[in-house]
Amino acid sequence: MSEVFGDPASVAVVGASADPAKWGHWLARGALEGSGRRRVHLVNSRGGEVLGHQVYRRLGELPEVPELVVLAVPATAVHDVAGEALTLGTRGLLVITAGVPDPAGLAARVRAAGARLVGPSCLGLYDAQSRLELAWGRFQPGPLGIVSQSGQVGLELAGLAAAAGVGVSRFVSVGGQADVTLGEMVEGLASHEATRAVVVYAEGFGDGRRLVHTLRRLTEAGKPVVVLTVGASAAGSAAARSHTGALTSTVDVVDAACRAAGAVRVTTPAEAVDVARFLLEAPAAVGDRLAIVGDSGGQGAIGADVAVRAGLRVPRAPVDLDGAGEKDLTSYARAVGALLRDGEADAVLLTGYFGSYGTDTPELGELELAVADDIGAVVAETGVPVVVHSMGPAGSPAVRALRARGVPVYGTVDAALSALAAAVRLAAGRGAVPPPVPEPRRPLPGGGYLAARELVASAGVRFPAGVAVTGPADVHPRVTGLRAPYVVKAEWLPHKSDVGGVAVGLADGGAVAEALAGMIARLGPGRYVVEEQDVRPDAVEILVGARWDAAFGPVVLVGAGGTEAELYRDTTVELGPVDTRQALAMLRRLRCYPLLDGWRGRAPLDLVALADTVSAVSWALVDSGAGEIELNPVRVGADGVVAVDALVTGGAGWA
Amino acid sequence: MSEVFGDPASVAVVGASADPAKWGHWLARGALEGSGRRRVHLVNSRGGEVLGHQVYRRLGELPEVPELVVLAVPATAVHDVAGEALTLGTRGLLVITAGVPDPAGLAARVRAAGARLVGPSCLGLYDAQSRLELAWGRFQPGPLGIVSQSGQVGLELAGLAAAAGVGVSRFVSVGGQADVTLGEMVEGLASHEATRAVVVYAEGFGDGRRLVHTLRRLTEAGKPVVVLTVGASAAGSAAARSHTGALTSTVDVVDAACRAAGAVRVTTPAEAVDVARFLLEAPAAVGDRLAIVGDSGGQGAIGADVAVRAGLRVPRAPVDLDGAGEKDLTSYARAVGALLRDGEADAVLLTGYFGSYGTDTPELGELELAVADDIGAVVAETGVPVVVHSMGPAGSPAVRALRARGVPVYGTVDAALSALAAAVRLAAGRGAVPPPVPEPRRPLPGGGYLAARELVASAGVRFPAGVAVTGPADVHPRVTGLRAPYVVKAEWLPHKSDVGGVAVGLADGGAVAEALAGMIARLGPGRYVVEEQDVRPDAVEILVGARWDAAFGPVVLVGAGGTEAELYRDTTVELGPVDTRQALAMLRRLRCYPLLDGWRGRAPLDLVALADTVSAVSWALVDSGAGEIELNPVRVGADGVVAVDALVTGGAGWA
Repeated sequence: MSEVFGDPASVAVVGASADPAKWGHWLARGALEGSGRRRVHLVNSRGGEVLGHQVYRRLGELPEVPELVVLAVPATAVHDVAGEALTLGTRGLLVITAGVPDPAGLAARVRAAGARLVGPSCLGLYDAQSRLELAWGRFQPGPLGIVSQSGQVGLELAGLAAAAGVGVSRFVSVGGQADVTLGEMVEGLASHEATRAVVVYAEGFGDGRRLVHTLRRLTEAGKPVVVLTVGASAAGSAAARSHTGALTSTVDVVDAACRAAGAVRVTTPAEAVDVARFLLEAPAAVGDRLAIVGDSGGQGAIGADVAVRAGLRVPRAPVDLDGAGEKDLTSYARAVGALLRDGEADAVLLTGYFGSYGTDTPELGELELAVADDIGAVVAETGVPVVVHSMGPAGSPAVRALRARGVPVYGTVDAALSALAAAVRLAAGRGAVPPPVPEPRRPLPGGGYLAARELVASAGVRFPAGVAVTGPADVHPRVTGLRAPYVVKAEWLPHKSDVGGVAVGLADGGAVAEALAGMIARLGPGRYVVEEQDVRPDAVEILVGARWDAAFGPVVLVGAGGTEAELYRDTTVELGPVDTRQALAMLRRLRCYPLLDGWRGRAPLDLVALADTVSAVSWALVDSGAGEIELNPVRVGADGVVAVDALVTGGAGWA
Repeated sequence: MSEVFGDPASVAVVGASADPAKWGHWLARGALEGSGRRRVHLVNSRGGEVLGHQVYRRLGELPEVPELVVLAVPATAVHDVAGEALTLGTRGLLVITAGVPDPAGLAARVRAAGARLVGPSCLGLYDAQSRLELAWGRFQPGPLGIVSQSGQVGLELAGLAAAAGVGVSRFVSVGGQADVTLGEMVEGLASHEATRAVVVYAEGFGDGRRLVHTLRRLTEAGKPVVVLTVGASAAGSAAARSHTGALTSTVDVVDAACRAAGAVRVTTPAEAVDVARFLLEAPAAVGDRLAIVGDSGGQGAIGADVAVRAGLRVPRAPVDLDGAGEKDLTSYARAVGALLRDGEADAVLLTGYFGSYGTDTPELGELELAVADDIGAVVAETGVPVVVHSMGPAGSPAVRALRARGVPVYGTVDAALSALAAAVRLAAGRGAVPPPVPEPRRPLPGGGYLAARELVASAGVRFPAGVAVTGPADVHPRVTGLRAPYVVKAEWLPHKSDVGGVAVGLADGGAVAEALAGMIARLGPGRYVVEEQDVRPDAVEILVGARWDAAFGPVVLVGAGGTEAELYRDTTVELGPVDTRQALAMLRRLRCYPLLDGWRGRAPLDLVALADTVSAVSWALVDSGAGEIELNPVRVGADGVVAVDALVTGGAGWA
């Protein structure tokens, strides 16, 4: 698959045009750029000549069967042209045309003929290594692979990269993915030598688990991956039956997938290019402690604020060269070198004027270059990344020297630190590859609290002691053996407490019977449960959930319990199932984590038991065939955890 | 003051140099640029000639007394040169030199002579209107006034503005502010005709209340102000006795000051310039509902995510032109026009390819310009701002046409929406000017809970009924008349509950006596309080505080009560005192506001009573002479509010 779209022996452009405002012209011109390497044929039903080359009227007239056929023809003509190509024995179709009728039928015909199709409705392909230029726009060759579900976002990425001096190794606009998927195209980059880093723009992820493994292969081969996606602004489904559904957004799940893949997610094309450039140019980031050197106190202080906003730590006050750099340029290298060598910083930001001396005062140019070399040398020696914000022109010799020596340079401190922060997230996030997830053996029907409790308890989660009752008459004989105070729950209701289906703090059997009678009067007869109430005063409530994501399969969520999860979205998500160690890492990322770990001098709570619970829920989802499991809340004390509500919805694994 | 530093009749540059690497050279060259408008004299103890002009050896040798003297001499010579200038009768000194000994003494001499001094240690002044060029760097004339506490940050601002095609009306690097302050220089811009917008970089704010009034005058005169400051990353003082102190950061207070001034705060120079450009070019933003037009679905979706991240709302799905723009460029103007006219959007983002057509396909250039004009016309007609993200070159004719017609254009969607979002914050934030705050009549000593309760209660805040007790023997006679359950508090302790100084849920006098005996055994004898416990089940806890800020005077804070304020920093701050209406606006900005306003179908809580309490606390601070007042928490129910703890620290107003 990769060869025919990567380096075909022959190409035919159908719809080739002499009109420079038409796509068929751009494609013909681009294809002909590669004619030193492969045979290029132009086809148009009107015949004639384009760019000095003969135009054939039909594919059948060509002197050979083209390996790859590019279609820039009216939508209504696509099926016919494709049919002719397949009959001839073409192996690959690149369909630029938008609005093609029945693309699924077209793809089926293509596959039945043993061929493959990219598109329809795409902006084409470019491959610097094989001089394949079958795309809108012109590209500079370079190390960056771009695979984009949106052609125009792909072009924006390539344009921003070019403006930053970074060329493209391969560009793929996958269009409608009627046949060849984005994932397959990303997979092809693993063996693509010219590609040293990858940006993927995706709006959907198809078989997300497989893509995670593909991306992991790329990143482990030393090709860092930046994932650009959308959906952060989509409101959680108001109709979601559980908090787990409402609180795991698309991008949270993509973030989890990126951690598993060793990749990093960003929100905009500019961020993607800034980060990709950092990953291409600098040594790998390993931690979040940033040291700052500025040649003005103001710029250093601004750098510190931006760093903290970006999620980095700035343990020490910025170093202010305060004129020392201006007096002696070598102070820059000395200050940066001292911070790189002392082991207290995981990265250094140099912010300010450096990079401009040679431009503003030509006599200083040579010295500035030597200092840039010195900075590069100490980065190479220590392996600690330095990122530079330079007020100077992007193409100054000193800036180019820094970049060539492993020190990325940015025109704003915003870009410099956004790039570094993403590299740090990437380093911090890289987690275990999630295990393969089998289809659950049987779909599980939904059920009430008791069924949910039984399912989750059998996975090892602790619940309060309790008994089922149907009316006040059951109460006295059954609550014997339970410890007061008691809780009564209407077991079949999902959000019990919102509808008066929970009564707490019942001191004795009489109070239980009274509460139960009232509940039956309001909610009707049904199955009710009496349980011991967990009244440990310092217990903290945590939400634990797991559900199947349509693309990425099982995901697990932990969050602050109660209203906090909703108001502050204090949640973390990972691909499931997770083990106890992974669950602990999830808990540490919660903003409410301090509550669990010795808040205000109290005893630390039982984090391991909580993490075990999280792991158990994630495995219970995979093993049971449930669509979703939620414990809301789990009460965490110093001496263990107790789940005090459970919800299991029906389902059958992959949606 | 403004005239001598804005348009002096004569200038002398002391330290003028023929060496292009020296400051004295830049200053001489710049000063001579204005020699068509004023007399310019060069002075250097070595005499000679600079740039073809005679260099005098001393100020006394000049043919006249220069109105303004610029000093670029060694630090040790500054006092002597300044003394000579003052003796001659010079009215203004601009001291570029850093490291001047005893700057306060120097400033005192200057003022005693009836003169003024800017600096020392500054990068100088530039005024496009009066051709005054006494600064490092070259400036393009334009509408932007820059006043900066850091010379280099000022230069970065000017450089970024120039790169974005925005020139500078006046540039002031205020340096050490030994005499003339940043506030005075900002004040001067109110009457500076060429200045149409202002960026201020400040690390400290001196008399912040006065600066607020100055900025308000500027913004009311139609000169929008962007404030760049630092300190967001500074950890709150761990030693702060109250939450109010720990939770009101420098930048929170600056944000409050900006709202009062009608200005807007940003974090980086790039943001400052992006926002200033929006404020200069576009109609004023009035609301946060953004509509999006993209020529690709991907760019529209990315725009929506970025908008929401920036604090805007995107009520409707982005309009995807999906090739329609490419087929007919006038679709851009039609789509944007329809959204501007339908009244559902407060602003429109156009994102994608528009701006590039004429560059990529010259035949489309004229049509693209006409469409840009049409977009500008509908913006002018509706007064609704449009912001454009264009993949095209910044200087393309279509981009220039848009900007000239009131439509700012940015090279990234990040910059476009960060600028718009800041303009929206500015529009939403503009509040009442805080009233002048008199010095409190007398400093108030700190005290325990009872003194604090008395102070705040007399301002109109409700507390639970309660009595003071010293031992178990007092309990039974005194709790008669109070309603159970009861609370016991050790009244002299500030963070009572952290040290076991509070017992709650005491059902009767016996339980109170027992709790009190235990507390006395642990904490020693002292004044204890027994109060009714507020046990309303749906009450929400809110933190209310007020304190004196060193620069801005009284500030008032509200926040989520309990641990949330600390973990999630869910707080809002305003300059005090505030009235009930302002306090309500503060409450609405809390992320926990939904808890107060009919959470999950419950009755709305008594917001007006809470707002009254906030207002009362803010006035109590101003009236009492207290350093800080904190109610933590105030319990808010559907039927009123009750403060259940109070802390007042001693103080005497302005720190």
